[in-house]
Amino acid sequence: MNDQSRAETLPEKIFSVLRSFQQTEALKAAIELDLFTAIGDSGSSPDDIAAHCHASARGVRVLCDYLCVLGLLQKRRGRYRQTPEAAFYLDRRSPHFIADAAIQMYAGGPFVEGFEHLTQAVRRGGTALASAGTLAPEHPCWVQFARARAPIGAANGKRLATLLGSSSSGAIRVLDIACGHGHYGIAIAKANPRAEIFAQDWPAVLDVAVGNAREAGVAERYHTIPGDVFGVTLRGGYDVVLITNFLPDFGPAECERLLTRIRHALTNDGRAVALQWIPDDDRLSPPTAPSLALSLLAETPGGNVYTYRELADMFRRAGFTRTELRELGPSLQRVVIAHHH
Amino acid sequence: MNDQSRAETLPEKIFSVLRSFQQTEALKAAIELDLFTAIGDSGSSPDDIAAHCHASARGVRVLCDYLCVLGLLQKRRGRYRQTPEAAFYLDRRSPHFIADAAIQMYAGGPFVEGFEHLTQAVRRGGTALASAGTLAPEHPCWVQFARARAPIGAANGKRLATLLGSSSSGAIRVLDIACGHGHYGIAIAKANPRAEIFAQDWPAVLDVAVGNAREAGVAERYHTIPGDVFGVTLRGGYDVVLITNFLPDFGPAECERLLTRIRHALTNDGRAVALQWIPDDDRLSPPTAPSLALSLLAETPGGNVYTYRELADMFRRAGFTRTELRELGPSLQRVVIAHHH
Repeated sequence: MNDQSRAETLPEKIFSVLRSFQQTEALKAAIELDLFTAIGDSGSSPDDIAAHCHASARGVRVLCDYLCVLGLLQKRRGRYRQTPEAAFYLDRRSPHFIADAAIQMYAGGPFVEGFEHLTQAVRRGGTALASAGTLAPEHPCWVQFARARAPIGAANGKRLATLLGSSSSGAIRVLDIACGHGHYGIAIAKANPRAEIFAQDWPAVLDVAVGNAREAGVAERYHTIPGDVFGVTLRGGYDVVLITNFLPDFGPAECERLLTRIRHALTNDGRAVALQWIPDDDRLSPPTAPSLALSLLAETPGGNVYTYRELADMFRRAGFTRTELRELGPSLQRVVIAHHH
Repeated sequence: MNDQSRAETLPEKIFSVLRSFQQTEALKAAIELDLFTAIGDSGSSPDDIAAHCHASARGVRVLCDYLCVLGLLQKRRGRYRQTPEAAFYLDRRSPHFIADAAIQMYAGGPFVEGFEHLTQAVRRGGTALASAGTLAPEHPCWVQFARARAPIGAANGKRLATLLGSSSSGAIRVLDIACGHGHYGIAIAKANPRAEIFAQDWPAVLDVAVGNAREAGVAERYHTIPGDVFGVTLRGGYDVVLITNFLPDFGPAECERLLTRIRHALTNDGRAVALQWIPDDDRLSPPTAPSLALSLLAETPGGNVYTYRELADMFRRAGFTRTELRELGPSLQRVVIAHHH
């Protein structure tokens, strides 16, 4: 390259990517300092915030300016205000506070550890973490996951219930595999007063889901199946089996094994419903898909994101006869609905 | 908030910020695996790359897809190609390879360490690192800094030499304070064959600058002043003193002390020239400024970014009589030119 093209090709993207961890650290520090709770509804000065956080005004101002750039605060005449997202989820006074769980989920424990050994994970083609990574039995991360993902689950749950025509489905039995926060099954129960939900997950995670079901007023139709999805008795006769954000945790052979179990638990005209990130055939879009694929490489033995073609193959090998791909409205996650008769 | 606004306010930005460290880890892993060197000019398949990197094809494909999302690779028909920026700076076959230095500078050693103690730095209003953080005498990070920042320095150096009218300045003496890679002084030497450059920095950093001066063909007019800028003899009679990306490392009192030293080293109509990130009065734009401010909080005892108003005050207190703010063309960094007679 000559000098001209050199001048045009500066390493700016490289530097920006290498510095990205600073965003994570800044938000972690702000949450640790309880900075968002310190900001009043009418905005606060660095001095106000510093007094609440037991910190220096200088340090607070620098951190708050950076949080403005990240889009989590706004600044006007030297005073800071929360953005709606920050007020909703990062302020301890909010009933929707999820900051601690979100740190645990995305920037703590096994997730950070998995990425610390990313080079080794790329070499071997799966997590370098001991045993099964985050898939170890009763891994506590899934409780945090259930808490942190609840808002997105609630929004997507409603969309999924509509997509499945739940309000006009009559008396149905719904199995919610690895239910997490439970919001997918709960949304169906809310849309259809004759739906009975059977929620499977680790016991500690089910506590979160049952709490959400109670809050949604559907607890009397919410039943639990605690245990390992590959071993527990799933019972049978389900009209719908929900498999939300779960298949990507596993390799194709395990997915096939799970889908076969699920097929056996369905009624004749029952539907298996997989909701997850499903990339286009180029695997690059939507961009969350390759990002999730990298997390799964770092943290699980065989997990990956799957294209619709790959998922359709898995369902077919598990004995399903027909699959369809559906969009989920404003969410870029997608849904595969599979039939076996 | 009601259900409607709740649905509209999902914690998506929060999750994205918390996950940002994954970008850093992905690029570090790719560099550690020497992945960019493994990619041929006509593109390479995951198998080709895996063979070169002693890694699994599965892991390589997942990492490469993610690097596509980051904008450092491109994918076509299952084969990966480098973007121009990656080919230029991350491929060991390139004479401009800076990957190792860039990791050290932005995602290694003291920089990561400073951010690991960010909460404490916010509490106390300055770095929680021992002694002076990255400002400790002869800290090795500055050699990496000089290597990694060289491309941007070379581009900005040319712009600065033009801004200063260097080609028509006649016989001048230029002092380059904390010269780093040296490209600012070198650009003046290239534009003006009668300019003599005096470059000050730690000895190991000067080795890098002298190498660059030699490569630029100006070594015989390139003189070195090794040592601590606050203690070393700067000599005098300079027509221009360059202070590039240096004042932000210090608090206002130290800046004033340094500028006073510099004023004494100038000829009567000499100019002090400070090039750095200078935010608008709101301190939020350009966005690199608050980002740098946070780094400086994490890594130095008193460093910060300064607005033009603050810099003009410092220069005035150091005995300068007139300052002007100038733009630097395509770069968003800015320049203060100060006169003292």
